[in-house]
Amino acid sequence: MKQAFVSDLQSDQNITSYFLVCEKEIRSTRDGKPYLRLELGDRTGTIEARMWDGFERDAASFQRDDFVKVQARVESYRSKLQIAIDKIRRAEEDEVDAADFFAHTPENVDQLYAKLLAFVASVKNPWLRRLLESVVQDPEIVPRLKRAPAAKVMHHAYLGGLLEHVISLCGLAKQIAAHYPELDVDLLLTAAILHDVGKLDELCYERAISYTVEGQLLGHIMMEFETVSRAMDAIEGFPANLKTVVQHLLISHHGQYEFGSPKLPMIREALAFHYLDDLDSKLAAARAALALDSGEPEWSAYSGALGRKFLRLDEFLKHTTSAPTDLK
Amino acid sequence: MKQAFVSDLQSDQNITSYFLVCEKEIRSTRDGKPYLRLELGDRTGTIEARMWDGFERDAASFQRDDFVKVQARVESYRSKLQIAIDKIRRAEEDEVDAADFFAHTPENVDQLYAKLLAFVASVKNPWLRRLLESVVQDPEIVPRLKRAPAAKVMHHAYLGGLLEHVISLCGLAKQIAAHYPELDVDLLLTAAILHDVGKLDELCYERAISYTVEGQLLGHIMMEFETVSRAMDAIEGFPANLKTVVQHLLISHHGQYEFGSPKLPMIREALAFHYLDDLDSKLAAARAALALDSGEPEWSAYSGALGRKFLRLDEFLKHTTSAPTDLK
Amino acid sequence: MKQAFVSDLQSDQNITSYFLVCEKEIRSTRDGKPYLRLELGDRTGTIEARMWDGFERDAASFQRDDFVKVQARVESYRSKLQIAIDKIRRAEEDEVDAADFFAHTPENVDQLYAKLLAFVASVKNPWLRRLLESVVQDPEIVPRLKRAPAAKVMHHAYLGGLLEHVISLCGLAKQIAAHYPELDVDLLLTAAILHDVGKLDELCYERAISYTVEGQLLGHIMMEFETVSRAMDAIEGFPANLKTVVQHLLISHHGQYEFGSPKLPMIREALAFHYLDDLDSKLAAARAALALDSGEPEWSAYSGALGRKFLRLDEFLKHTTSAPTDLK
Amino acid sequence: MKQAFVSDLQSDQNITSYFLVCEKEIRSTRDGKPYLRLELGDRTGTIEARMWDGFERDAASFQRDDFVKVQARVESYRSKLQIAIDKIRRAEEDEVDAADFFAHTPENVDQLYAKLLAFVASVKNPWLRRLLESVVQDPEIVPRLKRAPAAKVMHHAYLGGLLEHVISLCGLAKQIAAHYPELDVDLLLTAAILHDVGKLDELCYERAISYTVEGQLLGHIMMEFETVSRAMDAIEGFPANLKTVVQHLLISHHGQYEFGSPKLPMIREALAFHYLDDLDSKLAAARAALALDSGEPEWSAYSGALGRKFLRLDEFLKHTTSAPTDLK
Amino acid sequence: MKQAFVSDLQSDQNITSYFLVCEKEIRSTRDGKPYLRLELGDRTGTIEARMWDGFERDAASFQRDDFVKVQARVESYRSKLQIAIDKIRRAEEDEVDAADFFAHTPENVDQLYAKLLAFVASVKNPWLRRLLESVVQDPEIVPRLKRAPAAKVMHHAYLGGLLEHVISLCGLAKQIAAHYPELDVDLLLTAAILHDVGKLDELCYERAISYTVEGQLLGHIMMEFETVSRAMDAIEGFPANLKTVVQHLLISHHGQYEFGSPKLPMIREALAFHYLDDLDSKLAAARAALALDSGEPEWSAYSGALGRKFLRLDEFLKHTTSAPTDLK
Amino acid sequence: MKQAFVSDLQSDQNITSYFLVCEKEIRSTRDGKPYLRLELGDRTGTIEARMWDGFERDAASFQRDDFVKVQARVESYRSKLQIAIDKIRRAEEDEVDAADFFAHTPENVDQLYAKLLAFVASVKNPWLRRLLESVVQDPEIVPRLKRAPAAKVMHHAYLGGLLEHVISLCGLAKQIAAHYPELDVDLLLTAAILHDVGKLDELCYERAISYTVEGQLLGHIMMEFETVSRAMDAIEGFPANLKTVVQHLLISHHGQYEFGSPKLPMIREALAFHYLDDLDSKLAAARAALALDSGEPEWSAYSGALGRKFLRLDEFLKHTTSAPTDLK
Repeated sequence: MKQAFVSDLQSDQNITSYFLVCEKEIRSTRDGKPYLRLELGDRTGTIEARMWDGFERDAASFQRDDFVKVQARVESYRSKLQIAIDKIRRAEEDEVDAADFFAHTPENVDQLYAKLLAFVASVKNPWLRRLLESVVQDPEIVPRLKRAPAAKVMHHAYLGGLLEHVISLCGLAKQIAAHYPELDVDLLLTAAILHDVGKLDELCYERAISYTVEGQLLGHIMMEFETVSRAMDAIEGFPANLKTVVQHLLISHHGQYEFGSPKLPMIREALAFHYLDDLDSKLAAARAALALDSGEPEWSAYSGALGRKFLRLDEFLKHTTSAPTDLK
Repeated sequence: MKQAFVSDLQSDQNITSYFLVCEKEIRSTRDGKPYLRLELGDRTGTIEARMWDGFERDAASFQRDDFVKVQARVESYRSKLQIAIDKIRRAEEDEVDAADFFAHTPENVDQLYAKLLAFVASVKNPWLRRLLESVVQDPEIVPRLKRAPAAKVMHHAYLGGLLEHVISLCGLAKQIAAHYPELDVDLLLTAAILHDVGKLDELCYERAISYTVEGQLLGHIMMEFETVSRAMDAIEGFPANLKTVVQHLLISHHGQYEFGSPKLPMIREALAFHYLDDLDSKLAAARAALALDSGEPEWSAYSGALGRKFLRLDEFLKHTTSAPTDLK
Repeated sequence: MKQAFVSDLQSDQNITSYFLVCEKEIRSTRDGKPYLRLELGDRTGTIEARMWDGFERDAASFQRDDFVKVQARVESYRSKLQIAIDKIRRAEEDEVDAADFFAHTPENVDQLYAKLLAFVASVKNPWLRRLLESVVQDPEIVPRLKRAPAAKVMHHAYLGGLLEHVISLCGLAKQIAAHYPELDVDLLLTAAILHDVGKLDELCYERAISYTVEGQLLGHIMMEFETVSRAMDAIEGFPANLKTVVQHLLISHHGQYEFGSPKLPMIREALAFHYLDDLDSKLAAARAALALDSGEPEWSAYSGALGRKFLRLDEFLKHTTSAPTDLK
Repeated sequence: MKQAFVSDLQSDQNITSYFLVCEKEIRSTRDGKPYLRLELGDRTGTIEARMWDGFERDAASFQRDDFVKVQARVESYRSKLQIAIDKIRRAEEDEVDAADFFAHTPENVDQLYAKLLAFVASVKNPWLRRLLESVVQDPEIVPRLKRAPAAKVMHHAYLGGLLEHVISLCGLAKQIAAHYPELDVDLLLTAAILHDVGKLDELCYERAISYTVEGQLLGHIMMEFETVSRAMDAIEGFPANLKTVVQHLLISHHGQYEFGSPKLPMIREALAFHYLDDLDSKLAAARAALALDSGEPEWSAYSGALGRKFLRLDEFLKHTTSAPTDLK
Repeated sequence: MKQAFVSDLQSDQNITSYFLVCEKEIRSTRDGKPYLRLELGDRTGTIEARMWDGFERDAASFQRDDFVKVQARVESYRSKLQIAIDKIRRAEEDEVDAADFFAHTPENVDQLYAKLLAFVASVKNPWLRRLLESVVQDPEIVPRLKRAPAAKVMHHAYLGGLLEHVISLCGLAKQIAAHYPELDVDLLLTAAILHDVGKLDELCYERAISYTVEGQLLGHIMMEFETVSRAMDAIEGFPANLKTVVQHLLISHHGQYEFGSPKLPMIREALAFHYLDDLDSKLAAARAALALDSGEPEWSAYSGALGRKFLRLDEFLKHTTSAPTDLK
Repeated sequence: MKQAFVSDLQSDQNITSYFLVCEKEIRSTRDGKPYLRLELGDRTGTIEARMWDGFERDAASFQRDDFVKVQARVESYRSKLQIAIDKIRRAEEDEVDAADFFAHTPENVDQLYAKLLAFVASVKNPWLRRLLESVVQDPEIVPRLKRAPAAKVMHHAYLGGLLEHVISLCGLAKQIAAHYPELDVDLLLTAAILHDVGKLDELCYERAISYTVEGQLLGHIMMEFETVSRAMDAIEGFPANLKTVVQHLLISHHGQYEFGSPKLPMIREALAFHYLDDLDSKLAAARAALALDSGEPEWSAYSGALGRKFLRLDEFLKHTTSAPTDLK
């Protein structure tokens, strides 16, 4: 069982606990003495660690992204906490509970995936349905789709978060299309399902969530533009103009140039989808902020993603009389 | 019957037609000769008109916002068209068809109003329901609520447009609250119904749509803040914190400072409502742009409100094969 | 007598001193052990404090906003200083000197208030004079008006600061109106006296200065808009247009949308007042920055409010020859 | 006497009137036929004019910036009015009234200049007084100082406007320095008197107001920086640090980078002066907008310089009851 | 020979001349009468034209993008010039001189293309050389590459302009790489040659220059991203990371999000190339502005693309003494 | 030999090493006890130091900008490291290696200066050549020109950096002028050589690099404007318009108002030079970021100056196959 979590560590504490190896390097001090430098993490954060003496044999036993068992002392260095390791060894998967290391959607991903297939099956336009099938059933994509987070920090930043976000958007798409008869539900569903598929490669999330080099150089919009374009090209006879429409939905979904969309939405479904995506992301960010303790009973923690904190409505209204006197 | 519309007038044309008097003034030329200056309008626009001789008796017969019958010649002056009037007289309401003068929602406003009452009745929180009733059933408000446009130019800029916009938002509010269990549907409905009630006084729309002086100095957000605050104060025992929440919903609904909201949404319902309001307004603006002929078959007219034009999807996809070969 | 001030504390120091309790909470460690967590403050700042053992009886003796006497050790935790309390007890008001705990205007607030009444009495327009009287003599308002700071951090951020700022603006208003005959001095004085009255409720300043929940959700502009509107409604026969003018003065005084004014100044007095308010606030911020030691003899501390530091003119010019040779 | 003003011309009108020659060129049509192209102006605006036949002798009689007497016909070409000249000849100065051609401050410039000398004489710092004397009494500067406008369009855009603006600022400087004892009145007066002296060369205003080439390439801030720096260098022993302070006052007076100030005000007098300059300029722009007829009785013309229109307060409040009933 | 150019037309002129048909439509007046509406153009601009009577037979003889011979009268309608056609017929290519209709680079495009091949041949990296060869020698691309303009209005907005711009950039790339040894010349050349290849499809320029629908929905950055990615995929073994680098060069070349680049340059060659592209484009825009007559001898026409006008240096310095006296 | 560098210090370490005295002050604790406060530095950074007891004699032996030898203990105070000094004494220049204290261009400054003279000699315009000679050969300027950095932090932030930057720009100027025949190489060289000459006085860099008071109040653009203007005035007969052109080159070289240029480039050479300067500065900043270890093998350290990190191209492409199979 994990005994110490990163967010609870305090200076001068002696610990024995399990961690994930996020980075591993051999470095040298200025006078040439080698030492082991690690970044260790769990579900609550990451911390730097060093091992100064006799690390050679221990260090050979594990790699980046392995679990390790560590005996160490927490110290303060340059006003940050870090760990001075006495002993370290590789831990087996059965020694640890993965849930201690990776935050995860509270939903069941297999059920989410089943819902996704149902949404795909509901698409009437045969070209779009075939396109969606070819993507969401691609055996290279399925396992990653079930695992990917929707973002590194902004919203749904946990395993399975992408699928949770996509399913929420599919539901919204259905509702909005019912509300506005001028909107094509098939295009809205297509946007919902494909708009973040580039994140499967933009992020790496096998263990800790971070950006791939390719992800940083291109971004998920360009990456899914390429993936989805290739999928359309692979469907014989896919209409050229419909391809352009799907491409436009993908590249315009951030809604504004400064958020990395090279084109503004110029199709009504693209405009509407941008609002749905923004709404779902921002509500998720608010939810995350409200889940944290801020120390002020009526307020959430400050959300850097939204630039504000949120009112805890229940708390603020808890002493409200339940009804006007004459109605009681 | 109206024979000539403002948007069709051409230089050097002789006309006899009915117009609405938007402005009326007696001015003098530099050498002291008085003349009559009018702004005449109909559903398609407005034009300046002058009458140089013998206007005294005719001018006495009508006022601003009357209908008039005009015999005149269209001329070009300083590169704008204007009308030189030969004869003018007041016209009775039964000589004209009001629909030639005022653009109007295609919906039936009495049916819209009945839907509004139903939405109000569905509110479970007794304080909010009573607040909404007191506003939408106020005999001073009802007739204006059935007539007001939602804006001067941006969206729903026609009579009845405000009610159409409010009803659309109530429908969205119900859907979104069903989708996100964390959102309070009563607060969303309250926001939908009250968020633009200040426009009843910010705009004047008895005849042409324009801004009142008060509307320009205060804006509809401040005006409804005052109206709704007074309505809450009039309900004995209305909880103070709930009042603050309703006030926050009103003042934050533009979502950003630069759009005149003095506070960012800091309650989840306020955040969500801002997106719904923006979505409904922007889709209406896109609809208006698509209703105009742009001369390019695949494109709408340019929407100044949105800073772009919109693709006519039907036109662009009309030659698309209906299905993959193997599915036919 | 207070022996240790927050801004002077150093790691590993043992102290016995008085503080103000800014926050008080019982929390638990991960393994379920309860502890007392406080935020303690004085005129120079605040610091976090914890008491780990035997705090139950001591903690029952005092509340938030009480003074306490503390015996403790200063420690460094997660690169911030905090206090580990050994003993703590409630202190009586007569044990402490309030001036050690709250920064205060150097002016005499009763004299400031007398000046305010004189400015009100000088207003010629009877409607405005009555409005001002009804606000500044309201027994609920007077004590808060004598105590409130003008801001939490930006300018005049000390007790009595609001009144000091208002009196300065009244003096400027008189001068400017004398300089520009086109400006109405009564409107300028009305703006000066009422423009920040919402801060009485936006901020709480009984002990430490912070924002109320209502203040955060609405802001002082909306709060004074409501307060002053109600005060005008309470004066029988108050002219509707004059009410609109006063409301416009209040809501436009920040001068720009991005500073939370929902309308730009569209009345000359509103435009001029915005400049006076900005000038007085910024000079106060510069004065505060110059009062701090920056370590550079020619420069003030950096003012976050103004985004710059200020030259100490006396220092920079101290070696300047006093006059041209031929004039000596 | 001038019989036709540019702003009153109408298409198809025959005129005989005096104008100022703003531009004069011989051009050729595509097929090689030469013609005379002029820009003619008066106090109300400018208009393009052409003379097609027999212009050679007439054109030789006058130059740019001369007055001319013209017999011509007003025509509409490419949707702009222009003048087709039949006859043109040079007019003597005594045929025209200069006031018909150039807008001018309503103040007496000699009195303004006398006030300026009095303000200079009131400066106590001998270095600054000598500096100011050397500039405002420079025989090359005096006549231009009495004539220059303060801007081409933004504010005080008429002859003598610069001096009027400077005198107003000197008065404000005295008041503000009396109000804030921390401010040095000598530095404020120095800023007021020198801050726009570069406009003497940035603009040309012998006849029509326009920019010089040097003015466009450098701007008045750089030009006065050079002029005033040279004036300080010419005073033996002028203290180096005081020179830097004066230079800083000049270059920071626009207050922000985007308005062309290469440095933000970092001296309190520079900060305060920026506000005074902005206030005086903006009030002058509001005054100019209110002097124009907008067609709406309660509103000024739209001020492009301020991005808004202004309320005519007298008009809006004219029906206000003069006092509460119980005070009558 | 073409007798009348669009930019020379004047109201009330009778003309017989050749034009290009830019748009062609049959429309109806409000009372149902059909008429022919055209947009006619030549190298100097475009103008609207209408034919009211007997157009059916004539209109059948030509299509959009044909040349026509027109006998007509120029009129002013709603303050714009338009043409009322009396007779119109299709013109053969040998009746007209194409140079009268399309602006063209002054360079020889075959020589430019030969230079391009030489630059490609100089690339040492075999993967990049093969990629460039496959693009610039693609028989579908070559003819369009020799014809395409570099932009619709911003810079090099004439036939052959794209190739001229690319060759200029290749030359700059060689120089810069020689100057900074840290830069890879092969990558710079790759960027220069491929960075605007999407414009071949973003613009249509068979006759008049305009945007394709696909171009408006996707933009040239996305279009060349797809084209070049497909070209790299077609080269067996093309290294994945090198592909990512080339993709990054393409998508980052506008340098900032607000100019449509979804990523900032994060490779040094991408950073440097962005500057070269910007420099070459802006100098071309300045050149175009200087080629136009502004009426002011020292200034170019105003460049909307650059937001300023440019000094004619020769003119401004023409009276400069050629050398200091002591050097003569 | 220097034994401990600032960037290597760790809490609780005992050191004996040499440092540069960046600041020196006597301060007092709240209870009146005096102590010595220093800022000590070397090539790797600066750190605060205090000496509590018996410092009087030691402190008298050295001044700011002297080297000292220190025996001390590193401590952590308020989450920053600082040094508690036991012994301190002035060190002679021969005890230390200046290279340990000041970062320096890797180039030979005398060779750079010789190149500069060659560039000056290549200028054909005799006025400009004389101007450049008078500046770069001014005996007051030469030693500072050989020492000054190009900036405090943004780029070339080391001794000799300014000259290195200037020489690089001269080379670029030659190349660009050869590429674009429309550009005057003499003006480009003049801009390259003079555009940062104000930095000689804006920065102080005798020991540590910082800003002078004058530099902060005026900025290098204004300072070189004055220096170069005076140098032109000193050349008899220097043409007025050429002076204006040179002044414009200087003040417009930052390219945009928000970067402190009071005018946009309106001369082609000014436009081109702005790009060259920006390119050279940004590449230098990228070079500096790449020289730092970021812990990620493919990425540079984050460059605050550029707001991004840079890809290590060699690292990213190191496993790339060297050539297509069929070419091997």
